[in-house]
Amino acid sequence: MKVGFIGLGQMGAGMAANLLKAGHEVAVFNRTADKTRPLIERGARLCDRPADACRGDVVISMLADDPVLESVLLGEQGMIGALGQGAIHVCMATISVDLSERLTALHAEASQGYVAAPVFGRPDAAGSGRLFIVAAGAPDAIERCRPLFDAMGQRTFVVGERPQLASLVKLSGNYLIASVIETLGEAMALVSKAGIDRHQYLEILTSTLFGAPVYKIYGGLIADGRFEPAAFAAPLGLKDIRLTLAAAEALRVPMPVGSLLRDRLLSLLAQGGERLDWAAISQLAAQDAGQPPRSA
Amino acid sequence: MKVGFIGLGQMGAGMAANLLKAGHEVAVFNRTADKTRPLIERGARLCDRPADACRGDVVISMLADDPVLESVLLGEQGMIGALGQGAIHVCMATISVDLSERLTALHAEASQGYVAAPVFGRPDAAGSGRLFIVAAGAPDAIERCRPLFDAMGQRTFVVGERPQLASLVKLSGNYLIASVIETLGEAMALVSKAGIDRHQYLEILTSTLFGAPVYKIYGGLIADGRFEPAAFAAPLGLKDIRLTLAAAEALRVPMPVGSLLRDRLLSLLAQGGERLDWAAISQLAAQDAGQPPRSA
Amino acid sequence: MKVGFIGLGQMGAGMAANLLKAGHEVAVFNRTADKTRPLIERGARLCDRPADACRGDVVISMLADDPVLESVLLGEQGMIGALGQGAIHVCMATISVDLSERLTALHAEASQGYVAAPVFGRPDAAGSGRLFIVAAGAPDAIERCRPLFDAMGQRTFVVGERPQLASLVKLSGNYLIASVIETLGEAMALVSKAGIDRHQYLEILTSTLFGAPVYKIYGGLIADGRFEPAAFAAPLGLKDIRLTLAAAEALRVPMPVGSLLRDRLLSLLAQGGERLDWAAISQLAAQDAGQPPRSA
Amino acid sequence: MKVGFIGLGQMGAGMAANLLKAGHEVAVFNRTADKTRPLIERGARLCDRPADACRGDVVISMLADDPVLESVLLGEQGMIGALGQGAIHVCMATISVDLSERLTALHAEASQGYVAAPVFGRPDAAGSGRLFIVAAGAPDAIERCRPLFDAMGQRTFVVGERPQLASLVKLSGNYLIASVIETLGEAMALVSKAGIDRHQYLEILTSTLFGAPVYKIYGGLIADGRFEPAAFAAPLGLKDIRLTLAAAEALRVPMPVGSLLRDRLLSLLAQGGERLDWAAISQLAAQDAGQPPRSA
Repeated sequence: MKVGFIGLGQMGAGMAANLLKAGHEVAVFNRTADKTRPLIERGARLCDRPADACRGDVVISMLADDPVLESVLLGEQGMIGALGQGAIHVCMATISVDLSERLTALHAEASQGYVAAPVFGRPDAAGSGRLFIVAAGAPDAIERCRPLFDAMGQRTFVVGERPQLASLVKLSGNYLIASVIETLGEAMALVSKAGIDRHQYLEILTSTLFGAPVYKIYGGLIADGRFEPAAFAAPLGLKDIRLTLAAAEALRVPMPVGSLLRDRLLSLLAQGGERLDWAAISQLAAQDAGQPPRSA
Repeated sequence: MKVGFIGLGQMGAGMAANLLKAGHEVAVFNRTADKTRPLIERGARLCDRPADACRGDVVISMLADDPVLESVLLGEQGMIGALGQGAIHVCMATISVDLSERLTALHAEASQGYVAAPVFGRPDAAGSGRLFIVAAGAPDAIERCRPLFDAMGQRTFVVGERPQLASLVKLSGNYLIASVIETLGEAMALVSKAGIDRHQYLEILTSTLFGAPVYKIYGGLIADGRFEPAAFAAPLGLKDIRLTLAAAEALRVPMPVGSLLRDRLLSLLAQGGERLDWAAISQLAAQDAGQPPRSA
Repeated sequence: MKVGFIGLGQMGAGMAANLLKAGHEVAVFNRTADKTRPLIERGARLCDRPADACRGDVVISMLADDPVLESVLLGEQGMIGALGQGAIHVCMATISVDLSERLTALHAEASQGYVAAPVFGRPDAAGSGRLFIVAAGAPDAIERCRPLFDAMGQRTFVVGERPQLASLVKLSGNYLIASVIETLGEAMALVSKAGIDRHQYLEILTSTLFGAPVYKIYGGLIADGRFEPAAFAAPLGLKDIRLTLAAAEALRVPMPVGSLLRDRLLSLLAQGGERLDWAAISQLAAQDAGQPPRSA
Repeated sequence: MKVGFIGLGQMGAGMAANLLKAGHEVAVFNRTADKTRPLIERGARLCDRPADACRGDVVISMLADDPVLESVLLGEQGMIGALGQGAIHVCMATISVDLSERLTALHAEASQGYVAAPVFGRPDAAGSGRLFIVAAGAPDAIERCRPLFDAMGQRTFVVGERPQLASLVKLSGNYLIASVIETLGEAMALVSKAGIDRHQYLEILTSTLFGAPVYKIYGGLIADGRFEPAAFAAPLGLKDIRLTLAAAEALRVPMPVGSLLRDRLLSLLAQGGERLDWAAISQLAAQDAGQPPRSA
């Protein structure tokens, strides 16, 4: 299939490589072109502008946040103007429910398809094609994208026909991840102040009721006190919790743990944690308990 | 080994049965004797009073809460008076850190051993000998109890020599379970108000990052809206969160999600939920969002 | 002075009347013209469009929220285009810190002055000229507005030269009012469930340490359970708490009670409280305690 | 009247002095006798043991917390044993609702009266006889105590016949004071990070809607960042919030701001604030916002 790919960060680079490996014809654009080099070597076509990546059947965007995506989509040189009738825009980044809803309307006006298909998985899963994809959109559009999803992920869940539902599921999943970080942080502050070893404690948890990747991955970071380099940096975490709370506000759903997570992330940033993994909010519970910060 | 077993509720009955199956000589006491019948049929000796169950090498208690345990332990006819020198009391219920600490001293004064060995697992795991046991106490005392632990559980974790550490680990584990209930409740209130099917949502979570028993078991209850009959009733849940917060207060560790859980459980009880499973606190997030209560 | 006044709701009508009474020449605009009638009878000049109210030395806006103000300010027929060089726009409504900051720049570009001067006081205080005014802006601009402030308020506080500071002080004041509502709601849920009379309780509070208007006014509403008609409706309350939290987020200041207030207001709206005074969030504490709703 | 007075701390010393000034015959006991000297000089009779202070019509206790009061009341040399039939014990300290309820029963069994009469006011108000007294108990017992209340306070509120109601009102009042500290702390963290002067901000608040002693007294401490010497130390604050939450738990009333206050006080103590006034929890909001601690 002829596919464009816009946004080649830690996640996007791996995803685009898997599309190439599956035999698709891939045109790539990234703001800083050096990141595209490994993909060009594997056969990708380099584009100078986002619009140039919009000449195929499908264009995938994997851009950091709402304002960046909006600036690339709209305007004279924007993706919407460049994309052909009947072509499909697949947004695989975590964007707001509100923008997902507006994009549905904008692409429909331009007789284009729009599918929201955010992913669960960190950069290593993107590289190995083992992402989980949560998709929503018109059924035929999703069917056309399936070969692409199969190349990038290990499983695709279709949650409905309104694209914003996929954005909402993804945001709520990030909320649940952050909740695990916060509650593990509180529990570890408690048991470690009593003298229990954090790694043994984590082993007990993950050997019993809590044997899921989210506890193993984040529990390990918290037990180690290792928050650099960030696989998912605190400002991105704050963005996602903010978008979750905004979606919840629009639906009039109070989420008290969500509010706490927002406060924790603000506090982490206020204290200089811009470059830390969002798992570092776990340290705040220890700090509130008068415990010195840990380091790797 | 000659073992006494005091407290044959949903959990204790299964545990005692597994001791019999492993060939131990078991003397049982329960406040209401009818519960002991199936065990007598399998060869257990029925005791009229707790003290009569204290004539072996080890006596195991599995009693509902601190005051009940204290009343059975102390006093003229109490367990401490009846238990021989060198014998061991193994408390496998979830009791307060404070009582666990006091029992350590009381048994030491009487030249008896004391091991705290609370368990993770619901009644079905107790029946099939697949509990997880978290033990703390003097190393030789724990070694002597190992054959018993092996008969009742699939794995035993030793977390230290001070018995109260095992109580603390168990309490913090229950705090983490309740946190999962609360946060799943918030997330499901959000996505289901947007129109997403709760069961599909749960499948996405448990197929990806959240594939642990705690999400499957409690997620199923929440998605179904099925909170009766209670496997772990709300008043017991409140008791355990209260004990967690008391231990945290003694150690001066603030636990904001713990505080929220306490408020949720109080609210559930204030609204008449005495007989519901503690997973029913998940309904409060839906109620706050103006959603009608679900039923099975 | 020649003054325009845009926005004649419960507050604005009283404020404009006091300007007339003080002898100023007042041109008024309101979206629904019938509200302007009493002012016309007292000598105000009726304008067909906002731009027509911008021909004097000063134009005052008292519009419900950010989007309405923006739509009236910008565009071809907007206030900024109509206002002369050297004239001053005084925004007396509670707007976001962010918009206040942008207006400062927009008016400066147009060689106009901009003063933020939000007020404390409910409609009766607006009618009797006893508002408290919190102003910020260039010192000379504030001096020129002083005769107007003196006509509308009993006292003016100048908090700095950057207009957004006045917006921030006002928002934080509303946050404090809402905090009083919430905490009185919790305290009254507690004592009234124990059998203490709410009115007597309030009298004890206001006779001792809590003898301030905020406790008397809101305490009375809460003790009575009287939330209609709304002097300040719940959706406006949510807007102000949202703007407070947005300003706090920009400054990276976590406000946990602010987060709780947001959750309470969302819950009130989710349960159908659109038309109630924001003091009705106090009922949610009683509801959480299993108490039936009170009514006047 | 013949009155005993037990407990002569910062508060009790002033209260006993006012009883002497009003002409009552006062027998005093304090654990450390040197504090009694100024009272002896004014005519008080010094007692060696609490029991010796129980020979009059009324004995007043003003002891720091529940355990101390219990130890002085019960036992062979205890107040209950020493107090005559028909005599009245007036507890003016802030004790738990639960203990207040138990004392009612214990004194009734001994044919003695029991009145709970906690006070609002800091040491200066105790010294000048301007306390506010909240009393509950049998009407005739309260009437007999009235001359004493009039000597110590500026006004007495009778809230019911069950003594524990007075304890509950007092605890809830302390909860409201702590709420003001917390919310002022959050608001000042916000506005002062934006560059607004804290003292001017406080003046705006107390000149407008917030003109009550609680805002003036605590607002001044917070604006100054002056928390030593403590007029009411953090551990006492934690005790009162704990007792409030315990009373609320018994009545099944969730109090989310109460939970936050408990967490704040725990955090303050965990960070070494044992000797600070409880107003120092206001610093935690500033700390969460990355602001350096202030000092006087």
